[in-house]
Amino acid sequence: MRIAVDAMGGDHAPRSIVEGVVLAAREDPSALELILVGLEDEIRDELDQLKAGRLPISIVPASEMIEMHEKPVDALRQKKDSSITRTIDLVRDGAADAAVSAGNTGAMVAGSLLKLRTLAGIDRPAITVLMPNPVTGVTVLLDGGANAECKPFNLKQFGVMGSIYAEKVLAVDRPRVGLLSMGEEQSKGIPLTRDSYALLEKEPINFIGNIEGHDVFDGTVDVVVCDGFTGNIVLKMSEALASAIGKIIKTRARRTPLSALGATLMRPTFRYLKKKVDASEHGGAPLLGINGTVIICHGGSNGTAIRNAIRAAERFVQHNVNELITRCLRANGANAHDATSNEAPSKEETSDGSSA
Amino acid sequence: MRIAVDAMGGDHAPRSIVEGVVLAAREDPSALELILVGLEDEIRDELDQLKAGRLPISIVPASEMIEMHEKPVDALRQKKDSSITRTIDLVRDGAADAAVSAGNTGAMVAGSLLKLRTLAGIDRPAITVLMPNPVTGVTVLLDGGANAECKPFNLKQFGVMGSIYAEKVLAVDRPRVGLLSMGEEQSKGIPLTRDSYALLEKEPINFIGNIEGHDVFDGTVDVVVCDGFTGNIVLKMSEALASAIGKIIKTRARRTPLSALGATLMRPTFRYLKKKVDASEHGGAPLLGINGTVIICHGGSNGTAIRNAIRAAERFVQHNVNELITRCLRANGANAHDATSNEAPSKEETSDGSSA
Repeated sequence: MRIAVDAMGGDHAPRSIVEGVVLAAREDPSALELILVGLEDEIRDELDQLKAGRLPISIVPASEMIEMHEKPVDALRQKKDSSITRTIDLVRDGAADAAVSAGNTGAMVAGSLLKLRTLAGIDRPAITVLMPNPVTGVTVLLDGGANAECKPFNLKQFGVMGSIYAEKVLAVDRPRVGLLSMGEEQSKGIPLTRDSYALLEKEPINFIGNIEGHDVFDGTVDVVVCDGFTGNIVLKMSEALASAIGKIIKTRARRTPLSALGATLMRPTFRYLKKKVDASEHGGAPLLGINGTVIICHGGSNGTAIRNAIRAAERFVQHNVNELITRCLRANGANAHDATSNEAPSKEETSDGSSA
Repeated sequence: MRIAVDAMGGDHAPRSIVEGVVLAAREDPSALELILVGLEDEIRDELDQLKAGRLPISIVPASEMIEMHEKPVDALRQKKDSSITRTIDLVRDGAADAAVSAGNTGAMVAGSLLKLRTLAGIDRPAITVLMPNPVTGVTVLLDGGANAECKPFNLKQFGVMGSIYAEKVLAVDRPRVGLLSMGEEQSKGIPLTRDSYALLEKEPINFIGNIEGHDVFDGTVDVVVCDGFTGNIVLKMSEALASAIGKIIKTRARRTPLSALGATLMRPTFRYLKKKVDASEHGGAPLLGINGTVIICHGGSNGTAIRNAIRAAERFVQHNVNELITRCLRANGANAHDATSNEAPSKEETSDGSSA
């Protein structure tokens, strides 16, 4: 399997990206071919420092970088030789089976839409995040931020895709799909959630209705459906809250020798907890609904996070997730395809950047 | 000071409500007069069991209850002798200085709007929640769920009220007010946040621009402004995440004798943490912007939570919060009053229920 990795994206690029690629290659040198995309000299320096000469890692040059603050569509149009563009190109051209990037999320989403398009029956892709919960282990949340504004049929499609992903990749039996809202009854919430509720109810999925903020972590739901604005806030908040709690514990435990000793004895527990809630451990989020395998990583990804994202890409390809989604949508028939006959979704990114 | 408490509202009513009232009265029997509103016999039974005969607690009868799942405006119209209605009536009629309820939040908001109205210059009230953070101690978030849908001028007013509350009640110097969105730049987010940004920028407050989910707990902001849909999700999620993390730690620590010992030694730290993140400790959220003092409690409130909510009501009245807000709005002049000249806000609750 060949996986293209944007070497220039993320807060610690290219170092942590190259580290992650080397980690993944060392673990599994026979099954993987890894392609680092970006400034050749910089990448080679990092590879040399890590003595990665014999690993199955190649470089595809890209002379430009899209910075985190740049406007996605403008940047894609202006920087035709960006590492993000070239990484996605490799997938489009069949030279790679998957793309991984910790760079500008908006540019990855817009670039993937533009060059790979969506699966048949899907209007917009969704960043699909795995969040830990202490009961069932993991909750799927989508959209984590690919679409700030969503229409009801987008949320319906997210529900269907999330259900398939949970069932086929995470082996959840009849995944419970919930719509994130501010009350249990269908009448509660905002027009978007009320209308999405009516659509989700008709799908051949195990839709359990509205869920609330506290349900995200209590194991009562397997797939949380929401718009990207809400999902992005939920996601960033939960990462930060976990670390805030860790800080409170640490500071407080230092106050007495006994609790400091307690903290020392509990170190393995805290390490386990950190691993459990640490976004980097979950290895990036698939951009579900794109006709290709695209894994989006946190900007702050370290080497381990990139390694895990590469593993996530591998699993995504091995499970034929896109084929499963397409097949399920086709089997669901009219219901799923109704989507495309609805009011056309906003596709500015695609049309705007079509010359890129 | 006289505080009216809805004895019938909440998952554990009337028991936990009466317990909370008795706790508050025992601590401070000279300064407080507490009024329990609801089914007289039930309340008296609870008071007898708690041997509260000599405390300054009186009962105002109300024969009906608004259940948690009822539609607020309909329920207020149909149940004219509900404990929520009667509790708010006491404030309107000057028989109480503040109202406290753990009952149907929507009914409390609609009833307060209807009977007490908003402060001059304010179109909609906001549930104003105090959230813990490990750096500055506490972050104010509003709206926590009074308004599922908001207009930009609502968010502007929330920012102004939140700033005044943080400065005057929490003694924060030049409170940093942030708009919860999904990217730092003004151009990021959704139309509501982009337009609210433009309005907040012009106010005489310390507006620091957009903030993201992770900023809620990192102490970089004192006042978080958002619509009630988003705020409600943030609030419920953060409560649940804290408890989920506690569960993970507990389960894991039992695995080895050493970590179990560590957990025992750290008990005071965990107790402190629980207190820090436990919503009940923060004692209810003021409904800011209402012409009166209204404190809304979590449905699951126990006696301690109700006691703390009574204390919060006391502080609110002592600080003359409403007078401070009115005075500041007047001093800000045109800017603040522009609000009312904007497109009229949705006031269905008020007009619908005006016969209640």
